[in-house]
Amino acid sequence: MWPCAMDTPLEKALATLVCTFHKYSGREGDKLTLSKRELKELVKNELGLGERLDGGIEQLMKSLDKNSDQEIDFKEYSVFLSTLCMAYNEFFQESRK
Amino acid sequence: MWPCAMDTPLEKALATLVCTFHKYSGREGDKLTLSKRELKELVKNELGLGERLDGGIEQLMKSLDKNSDQEIDFKEYSVFLSTLCMAYNEFFQESRK
Repeated sequence: MWPCAMDTPLEKALATLVCTFHKYSGREGDKLTLSKRELKELVKNELGLGERLDGGIEQLMKSLDKNSDQEIDFKEYSVFLSTLCMAYNEFFQESRK
Repeated sequence: MWPCAMDTPLEKALATLVCTFHKYSGREGDKLTLSKRELKELVKNELGLGERLDGGIEQLMKSLDKNSDQEIDFKEYSVFLSTLCMAYNEFFQESRK
């Protein structure tokens, strides 16, 4: 299933990012993209920030859906995670000051 | 330390991505960037792909170091992880065919 043994914490983390996408993308419609409902479920269940999403899922969907096909493909999802990672990194660095 | 409880697998995975960066960036020089040596250590220890890195660390460093300051900052690192994630996603999808 994976290109290598995926033993290290970083590899397991990357595998989790991939599996979480497919856990939701497979629920309805195109199995390889997230519909608005699937994205909402993912954010609500998998991200503590979900409730505090200002502007809600509409805004998030609009900002992620670069090709405006009303679906989030894996590339658009990985950009979302990168942005989240940057935010977590800022919290991490602030907390160490 | 984090913006929320970081309880879910996805949040733990994102926290791992951040912590792994800082585990290596703090070793020498600028504590918030990866030198070539720190990047090499990270790839070697944390990524099974490390040994099979064609073109080696020079090539990787060149491709990631967008502002050519000979250092990899967190943004450049998160782009690297996004690219890796896309590769893992392809393996994941191939394996399910």
